[in-house]
Amino acid sequence: MSSWQTYLDSQSDRFLQELLDFLRIPSISSLSENAADVQKAAEWVARRMAAAGIEGVRILPTGGHPVVYGEWLHAPGKSTVLIYGHFDTQPVDPLHLWTHPPFEPIVKEGRVYARGASDDKGNMLIPILAVEAMLKTEGKLPVNVKFMFEGQEEIGSPQLPGFVAAQRDLLACDVVLSADGTQYSENEPALLLSLKGICGVQIDIKGAKGDLHSGVYGGTIQNPLHALAALIASMHSPDGKILVDGFYDAVVPLSEEDRAHIAAVPFDEEAYKRDLGVDEVFGEPGYTTRERAWVRPTLEVNGMWGGFQGEGTKTVLPNEAHAKITCRLVANQQPAQIIKLLEAHIAKHAPRGVRVTVTASNASSDPYSMPADHPANRAAYAVLEALYGRPPYYVRMGGSVPVCPMFLKHLGAYTVSLGFGLEDECVHAPDEFFRLSSFRRGQTAYAMMLEKLAE
Amino acid sequence: MSSWQTYLDSQSDRFLQELLDFLRIPSISSLSENAADVQKAAEWVARRMAAAGIEGVRILPTGGHPVVYGEWLHAPGKSTVLIYGHFDTQPVDPLHLWTHPPFEPIVKEGRVYARGASDDKGNMLIPILAVEAMLKTEGKLPVNVKFMFEGQEEIGSPQLPGFVAAQRDLLACDVVLSADGTQYSENEPALLLSLKGICGVQIDIKGAKGDLHSGVYGGTIQNPLHALAALIASMHSPDGKILVDGFYDAVVPLSEEDRAHIAAVPFDEEAYKRDLGVDEVFGEPGYTTRERAWVRPTLEVNGMWGGFQGEGTKTVLPNEAHAKITCRLVANQQPAQIIKLLEAHIAKHAPRGVRVTVTASNASSDPYSMPADHPANRAAYAVLEALYGRPPYYVRMGGSVPVCPMFLKHLGAYTVSLGFGLEDECVHAPDEFFRLSSFRRGQTAYAMMLEKLAE
Repeated sequence: MSSWQTYLDSQSDRFLQELLDFLRIPSISSLSENAADVQKAAEWVARRMAAAGIEGVRILPTGGHPVVYGEWLHAPGKSTVLIYGHFDTQPVDPLHLWTHPPFEPIVKEGRVYARGASDDKGNMLIPILAVEAMLKTEGKLPVNVKFMFEGQEEIGSPQLPGFVAAQRDLLACDVVLSADGTQYSENEPALLLSLKGICGVQIDIKGAKGDLHSGVYGGTIQNPLHALAALIASMHSPDGKILVDGFYDAVVPLSEEDRAHIAAVPFDEEAYKRDLGVDEVFGEPGYTTRERAWVRPTLEVNGMWGGFQGEGTKTVLPNEAHAKITCRLVANQQPAQIIKLLEAHIAKHAPRGVRVTVTASNASSDPYSMPADHPANRAAYAVLEALYGRPPYYVRMGGSVPVCPMFLKHLGAYTVSLGFGLEDECVHAPDEFFRLSSFRRGQTAYAMMLEKLAE
Repeated sequence: MSSWQTYLDSQSDRFLQELLDFLRIPSISSLSENAADVQKAAEWVARRMAAAGIEGVRILPTGGHPVVYGEWLHAPGKSTVLIYGHFDTQPVDPLHLWTHPPFEPIVKEGRVYARGASDDKGNMLIPILAVEAMLKTEGKLPVNVKFMFEGQEEIGSPQLPGFVAAQRDLLACDVVLSADGTQYSENEPALLLSLKGICGVQIDIKGAKGDLHSGVYGGTIQNPLHALAALIASMHSPDGKILVDGFYDAVVPLSEEDRAHIAAVPFDEEAYKRDLGVDEVFGEPGYTTRERAWVRPTLEVNGMWGGFQGEGTKTVLPNEAHAKITCRLVANQQPAQIIKLLEAHIAKHAPRGVRVTVTASNASSDPYSMPADHPANRAAYAVLEALYGRPPYYVRMGGSVPVCPMFLKHLGAYTVSLGFGLEDECVHAPDEFFRLSSFRRGQTAYAMMLEKLAE
């Protein structure tokens, strides 16, 4: 057994107590009344990093919630790894659905229950502990390591792009390890190969000056709701293909290897339908459900409204109609380009007799994908295989994690997602928890990963 | 000058004071706290009718707000006329936009301002006064007359169909005169030839059990908002024709005479667009704007909604979508048949992967149309021409007045709309008023009309 593993085992009670300490700080980034708690969490992290032997620890301003930075750079000739995580949390409501107070962590049956336990305090503490174990037992790390922990992930990291761009020299690295991620199951590891990007628009349609009597004016002017329905309907074929001209043009086609990776991941379509409560899956022809979810771009209307929505009948010809749309993008689609295509589609298909305006939303992120054979990915593959006793699944996510394309853009570095939460851990929901077995396994994984990256 | 005209002229101050009295009763039928006021208005009407010499006056229960009935049936061999009107009013809000309190009537520059002045107290008092003048001066009426004034018109007359059906013997007549109507302008009379019917449905679309993350699930199952948009879009061609199979089948084609009548009514399309604030009129090809408004059936979405409608972005794949639709019908379309066609269309066009339900709304009324050459219409034509010094326009209404098809169905009698309000009188709005010139001209018109019907 390696000396750092002996250290990790011997300190596990203390580490758990420290995690509980960390979890007691209600660092909810979305609530202004908790801003001081987010700052307090940053200070806790900084102190803990320094105690681990990490150097140059400092709390850096961003214009919003701060970033905590630290480094250990005494491995000349070795690569430099940036470790990312976040110390802010989601709000706790609905509070009455929690079995225990969300910021009074309790340990029960090998799990620690608290807001932030899995997302992301438990996971982000892991690499600090692994580094401490290596420094305390071996006096050094096998590679150069930088740490960047942020306090605004749960509000969409509004100041992070500017911060990363401005601090590109400080943060310069060969690869990023993200401690904000998941594995496939307790016994099956996973390695994330791609995330979708996102962009969106709001469509606003105006007709007459005000709402009109549908008997007196119906049939004489365009109804904004009819116009909106026609416009939205023009965006998909009846079988679910997106009909916006050029929408798929930039998409990198799926390779046979990609399809094989996806097909290798267990998927029970009957269970999927049952869980969602739908009679059939539906979407772009020519792709499996998993492929559509993971690697095909989508266009979804998130909301649509206009006119009378109350009980009974109101015979109004409304003068406004609205829709919110977001697209999930895959490599190599660009948010700005997709917005242009949407605008062109809407201009081309806008029904007569109404005024249609399109406003791009702030939610924007590039898609992210990482070559399966990237050296850091191969390292993570080997570590996970050794730890779990079986090779990881190559998985993808339909969701968007803006920090990954951001690091690629500003630092030129890919991000390996090396987190140990599981999907059932009630992240963002009542009774969030983290498995202590994951907390311990993660520490070993990070130490192994740093060694592997030095090879 | 006829003796009744001399009487009308001599009593005009008293009649105005009586109208002000009547207008002081806040008989708002939609507010339960005003139910006693509606009853009080019924009692006022009954007393006023009896004072006019009308016989058999009684307040009849309907299960809701009452009906006031009276009669004068001493013209053997002459036709029987049923005079209709209503003594209930709309609510007054927004109260702060009224220049004077709505139930403290004031007279200013030849107008009386109060809620209900034009709709319909001023208009419904007119025939009572005309009958009084004839009875006081000539001791008799030229035809048999029945009166039916209701107290629930402004809430859609929910108990009236049952009441009219149950009282068909009491109400039996040859023709109805409705004192709830308008003329074209102060100097131009109008005769109403048709009203549209109405029917409606609500469409409810359900997808998954609950709202889903649009990144994780987008593209894998049908989005209810996409399904709704496709369904609504399927109901109209891009140029505004209704595409529901069979929708136009029962429609009686417009005759050349109908089109000539409509074309003869002044219509300034540029002013129409300017007033509505639209750049162009729009609708079923092959018909003028007036024809579409007055005599072509329509299908309008009154409201449509689902998903996130707040500020910013919420990347939800919603599990519900809804729309409310009403159709305006023309002769000989039947509401029940149109509902069936809508259900069939929706069943045929319902997108895959969601559950679509259709619920017919309670708002239902047959279309109504009256032959231009009906004897009572010819009589009204002659009276209006004599009074205004020019022939009336034949007009139609896109709105629905359920009482007209109801009288036709249960009593077999057509309704001549003989009211004297004008469109600018702020009916249902703040500062409603009625012109005293219309109040006096209407009294003369009703006396002339009864004489004409005796010829």
